Amino acid sequence: MTKRQEQILQIVKDEGPITGENIAEHLNLTRATLRPDLSILTMSGYLDARPRVGYFYAGRPTSSVIAERLHKLVVNDYKAVPIVVAESATVYDAIVTLFLEDVGTLFVVNQKGLLAGVVSRKDLLRASLGNKGLESIPVSIIMTRMPNIVTCSPEETLLDTAQKLIEFQIDSLPVVRPNEEDPKTFELLGRITKTTISRAFVELGKESNV
Amino acid sequence: MTKRQEQILQIVKDEGPITGENIAEHLNLTRATLRPDLSILTMSGYLDARPRVGYFYAGRPTSSVIAERLHKLVVNDYKAVPIVVAESATVYDAIVTLFLEDVGTLFVVNQKGLLAGVVSRKDLLRASLGNKGLESIPVSIIMTRMPNIVTCSPEETLLDTAQKLIEFQIDSLPVVRPNEEDPKTFELLGRITKTTISRAFVELGKESNV
Repeated sequence: MTKRQEQILQIVKDEGPITGENIAEHLNLTRATLRPDLSILTMSGYLDARPRVGYFYAGRPTSSVIAERLHKLVVNDYKAVPIVVAESATVYDAIVTLFLEDVGTLFVVNQKGLLAGVVSRKDLLRASLGNKGLESIPVSIIMTRMPNIVTCSPEETLLDTAQKLIEFQIDSLPVVRPNEEDPKTFELLGRITKTTISRAFVELGKESNV
Repeated sequence: MTKRQEQILQIVKDEGPITGENIAEHLNLTRATLRPDLSILTMSGYLDARPRVGYFYAGRPTSSVIAERLHKLVVNDYKAVPIVVAESATVYDAIVTLFLEDVGTLFVVNQKGLLAGVVSRKDLLRASLGNKGLESIPVSIIMTRMPNIVTCSPEETLLDTAQKLIEFQIDSLPVVRPNEEDPKTFELLGRITKTTISRAFVELGKESNV
């Protein structure tokens, strides 16, 4: 929307119903100059016009209402607790944790509690195929490491994280913030998964339908 | 919303700006009788009132717009192709298919192509632990069978499927329809996963923001 279209919308909100002539006066423009803007605002559903009365504010179009609402959902309000294993854990330990905690992805942390890696169900399945010594293989050998871990920040929108989950074909994103002492390393704050996104989707559908 | 509130809304949409007196006349009621309805409609954001002008239609409240839009998304428009293995396949075959097709859940079909079971990454991981003879174990031994499979129909809303995915803590739902010859069995039409839901979520956020 152009600046002028925003001004028109505000005038109609404040003073509507109002004629095109009167809107033009407010802006020190001619009615003819405003004609294209008024057409766009009417066609896109923001304004409604009635003969001999003038322009009304018709409410925002559906798509704009939804996009605006979705862009307000932020990671920090939706993140779940991250499930972690130590870097020194074995592949066997990781599999046990996966089943006990009933999650799809584990985060691996180093001795300082900083994010060291990510292990998915697929990584564990691959490792377990034909390997008998799962108790002796460290999880750090099969995990994905930085800089190959896709992360998100607490301030990011849920929409951006959903986009990342799809684009990188992963199930889970660690929510991180740079470590103050060494900004190349990350503190682990939570997790966002496709379950998180599905839950937000269900919540939106339940919002009070007056 | 009550029937009378709906009538009021329609009158204001058609004839607004309109005074409370005039709305009452249309309905053969007194202004006093309408007062509670007008208050509710104004507070909930449907109507706006301006002194000496009357009531306007203010557009539907955000939550109602979003809920209505979400309830229109239907499984049939979003379902993905189901990835299947035959009932006679081995656990090893299933694991290979899982990696080749890059999915999280496989559907098992019988000789008639009807849904016989569901196998998840976790089922396969559990089976592979400590088992050397994956090539000789039939997938039908480890799969989940009817009536324990949670399914959905093509006409169902995406919201209902998201609710099922969360409630039953599963990653994927088979989209099915009852087989004409034997309605206790099901034809497999597609799959809905948490990825499907995440993708719909992203699409909603991208809808044209005029």
